[in-house]
Amino acid sequence: MIKIEGIAASAGVAIAPAFKLEHPDFTVQQRSVSDVAAEVAKLNAALDKSKAELEAIKERTLQELGAKKAEIFEAHLLILNDPELISPVEDMIRNEMVNAEYALNETANQFISMFENMKSAYLQERAADMKDVTKRVLIHLLGLNYVNPAEISEEVVIIAEDLTPSDTAQLNRKYVKGFTTNIGGRTSHSAIMARSLEIPAVVGTKEVLDKVNNGDLVIVDGLDGKVIINPTEELVADYRSKQQKYQLQIEEWRKLRDQATVSADGVHVELAANIGTPNDVPGVIDNGGEAVGLYRTEFLYMGRDKLPTEEIQFNAYKTVLEKMEGKPVVVRTLDIGGDKELPYLDLPKEMNPFLGFRAVRLCLDRTDIFRTQLRALLRASVYGNLRIMFPMIATLDEFRQAKALLLEEKDKLAAEGIEVSDEIQLGIMVEIPSTAIIADQFAKEVDFFSIGTNDLIQYTMAADRMNERVSYLYQPYNPAILRLVKMVIDAAHKEGKWAGMCGEMAGDATAIPLLLGLGLDEFSMSATSILPARSQISKLSKADMAELAAKALTMQTAAQVVELVKSIDA
Amino acid sequence: MIKIEGIAASAGVAIAPAFKLEHPDFTVQQRSVSDVAAEVAKLNAALDKSKAELEAIKERTLQELGAKKAEIFEAHLLILNDPELISPVEDMIRNEMVNAEYALNETANQFISMFENMKSAYLQERAADMKDVTKRVLIHLLGLNYVNPAEISEEVVIIAEDLTPSDTAQLNRKYVKGFTTNIGGRTSHSAIMARSLEIPAVVGTKEVLDKVNNGDLVIVDGLDGKVIINPTEELVADYRSKQQKYQLQIEEWRKLRDQATVSADGVHVELAANIGTPNDVPGVIDNGGEAVGLYRTEFLYMGRDKLPTEEIQFNAYKTVLEKMEGKPVVVRTLDIGGDKELPYLDLPKEMNPFLGFRAVRLCLDRTDIFRTQLRALLRASVYGNLRIMFPMIATLDEFRQAKALLLEEKDKLAAEGIEVSDEIQLGIMVEIPSTAIIADQFAKEVDFFSIGTNDLIQYTMAADRMNERVSYLYQPYNPAILRLVKMVIDAAHKEGKWAGMCGEMAGDATAIPLLLGLGLDEFSMSATSILPARSQISKLSKADMAELAAKALTMQTAAQVVELVKSIDA
Repeated sequence: MIKIEGIAASAGVAIAPAFKLEHPDFTVQQRSVSDVAAEVAKLNAALDKSKAELEAIKERTLQELGAKKAEIFEAHLLILNDPELISPVEDMIRNEMVNAEYALNETANQFISMFENMKSAYLQERAADMKDVTKRVLIHLLGLNYVNPAEISEEVVIIAEDLTPSDTAQLNRKYVKGFTTNIGGRTSHSAIMARSLEIPAVVGTKEVLDKVNNGDLVIVDGLDGKVIINPTEELVADYRSKQQKYQLQIEEWRKLRDQATVSADGVHVELAANIGTPNDVPGVIDNGGEAVGLYRTEFLYMGRDKLPTEEIQFNAYKTVLEKMEGKPVVVRTLDIGGDKELPYLDLPKEMNPFLGFRAVRLCLDRTDIFRTQLRALLRASVYGNLRIMFPMIATLDEFRQAKALLLEEKDKLAAEGIEVSDEIQLGIMVEIPSTAIIADQFAKEVDFFSIGTNDLIQYTMAADRMNERVSYLYQPYNPAILRLVKMVIDAAHKEGKWAGMCGEMAGDATAIPLLLGLGLDEFSMSATSILPARSQISKLSKADMAELAAKALTMQTAAQVVELVKSIDA
Repeated sequence: MIKIEGIAASAGVAIAPAFKLEHPDFTVQQRSVSDVAAEVAKLNAALDKSKAELEAIKERTLQELGAKKAEIFEAHLLILNDPELISPVEDMIRNEMVNAEYALNETANQFISMFENMKSAYLQERAADMKDVTKRVLIHLLGLNYVNPAEISEEVVIIAEDLTPSDTAQLNRKYVKGFTTNIGGRTSHSAIMARSLEIPAVVGTKEVLDKVNNGDLVIVDGLDGKVIINPTEELVADYRSKQQKYQLQIEEWRKLRDQATVSADGVHVELAANIGTPNDVPGVIDNGGEAVGLYRTEFLYMGRDKLPTEEIQFNAYKTVLEKMEGKPVVVRTLDIGGDKELPYLDLPKEMNPFLGFRAVRLCLDRTDIFRTQLRALLRASVYGNLRIMFPMIATLDEFRQAKALLLEEKDKLAAEGIEVSDEIQLGIMVEIPSTAIIADQFAKEVDFFSIGTNDLIQYTMAADRMNERVSYLYQPYNPAILRLVKMVIDAAHKEGKWAGMCGEMAGDATAIPLLLGLGLDEFSMSATSILPARSQISKLSKADMAELAAKALTMQTAAQVVELVKSIDA
């Protein structure tokens, strides 16, 4: 039995055999073959196996995840069934008398580099498809022992160095009961995905991948950040009961679904959800969200080979507003750049992209892109309760410029006779220290603030949140961060405006007592965190938490603040 | 006549013909030659010309800049005189019957790539030498029209896209009267170098290189940030008198050399200098510096193939302390990483180096490096008035860890019977927002603060100061920056400590009234800015400036603050 400590990234307990997600060695050697017919037969056998696999996965995906997600496998099948793509492989085996895997690899690489060299995002995605398919066939040709995580069909716990966005997108909740990784923190991509999929996860263990063998029984305790490999039977029993207790807890939480969020001393706050696409709205409603506190519009711009039209955007915004049935929806305008790139914009590489040309900085330069989005938003405004929010605002000038563009588009629409709501609130993300520090000046001009803690923390501490070597400085509970949060909330209230938070911190059980005490009005988080947060807040007195927060502001270190918060449970 | 606006980067007025610093096309074509003897003769002629040039430059450099700076040209001569390096070129011409420039280029590239592939910083520098020499010979072989900026021997104004550190290091003040560039800002490397060399400069003009022809008469007005190409005779006369007026002004300033810095209402502040090596100390004294406010120790670690020994460091620190004759010397411990790399440390590439593993973050991990520096500093402390300063402190924990290492080394030295001063002040750079925000907590534990505005501004505004696309956000006068500065100064004073500033802002004429008003105790700047600053402060009433600063803190934008400061001149 081995116990490993990590970072609790997604709540719950998973108990299942280990599935190590490692990338096998696809190196291919060139060999001369004499029996060409046997080599061609080998190729065809591998192709047939691959096709059969793809048919099965396609079918399963269709049933479990819908037609949209199954499309990718259909595309892969089309490649394997295309004689124009496959017959050159056979020709090469026959003409050059080489082994099948070499012929396949060479031929595929030719197509891939041809696609990649064309400046079309569409063809670049085809190159990615072709790479995936080639790997699948190579697995059979090389006799590799490898299962794609999307094709797992038994209950497992996934063990990996890290999970990429495409790894997590493919995980099937039915079989993947939990996961644990060597690297990452609470705000890493895989952690956020785990919470959204409600899969228990422990990240940042540093060593779990080296300590576990495939098939070892593994407990992933996403409540306390522990991983246990080959536990004793007693321990398994303990964790089964912990699992059940958590299940009961979840059922308790579900009863709060249609209730307002009210503190023990009767103060109402709003619990909202962060979403990325209209498809996320049912999850918000199902988890009792009172609003959408952050609609990230980047996804509309990604996975395309050109900018989304005004119509595409209008439809997305309208759908979200309608589905939320009059509840507030805060839409953040395009926040691209930094770690999020759009190949078709062809932006220059930057030495420090997190301190670079991104979000509103880009939009104020590329006003064509910005105006299209603003028009789509304004047109959609009549279908619900729209609030527009600008990201990465660092100066009042930027806010004024962005607002002026919005008003211009509004006037143009009026002149065209198109109806626009007059009730649209206009706010900003507070994620740059300068903006928090002069929030009193901003509060005179905006309708609301939403504190974006993920970026605010990384700038305030000057520590890239993606960089493992400085992750110790990503400190949400550092008194400096709490003081900035207080400045923002106080500034808003002084001008009769509201202040929310849409970073990961808003859904964090340790932060919630402090944020309640500091007077935060709206907490926007992963939908799955809403009910636990509502339950927690219902047991806290806001007046007591105000005292706690006042004390936290005078602490010297993040560790002292955490200790202070823990003392209220004691 | 063309007038171009840019950023005033270094004071003074230059009037001289344009010298466009552009890099010529060194592309070499392969040709077959029949007359091999003629081709060898051509090679030898080019070699002879190159050697004659190098002899002349070496001699001039020796006389004007000293033996150290002349060494590089001696090294270049050694290459050209080395038969092992040159005879392979001749052999190639004879054996392969190819043209001289091709043979030279091929042979040199072989040596260069051999050197570059060896992991020795020393050999990598040899590769750089060989590249320089090859270019010099190619200029003659290809008949290129190119003059190395180091070899300019007439009065000129240099016009360039940008100047690299190696370009500026080679500039000869005798002939280069000024320069102007398309890109850069007040804190870019070339601007800082210009101030240190006292060469008038205007940077960030965006277009000067395209508008000027070689030999055009150019005025560089480094006082007001203007460049005029082919001015009228009248304008030249106006600028000659502006130049003279500035010269008289400088002479006035020189009279303040041995005076204390006292405001019009009798308050003393300390004007200190930023230095990089012991060689900079005479300039500090010559410009009336009352202290060294920032000794950047990075240069000790650069241009080597391994870490500097304790002895090398001890000697450097001792020299500076002795030369300053008991005046305070603030030594900043190693600030490497970010934009400053050390090849021999072999640090991993980072996505956002400015938010990465640098300075004290690195030193607390690589305590071997840190302890050596601390020992050298402690040993040197008995030779003057040493103050030690840690860079990039983000949390109290980091300061405490760094201090603990210092005390450990102090105890070890005591045990070894080595004398250490008991008067060493221990402080931190305040260049990360979190540290400014909880400066009240830090002030209880440090002896002093030195505000590093270059980094503090870039983190507070979340804008890379090297990135042209977001340079509009590098706002020293943003009220948010002023509020942070106030927090730091007030926190220091409350605990009876002193607060200084060692960023570019400390020497900026627009910032000085505000900083005086906010109560800054020590201003550390380029040595050449000290006398103008002393003159300026002597005319300002601190009490009036306190009122001005209080007003500035309530402004909404940087532009309003600048307007406010300008109003005091009116």
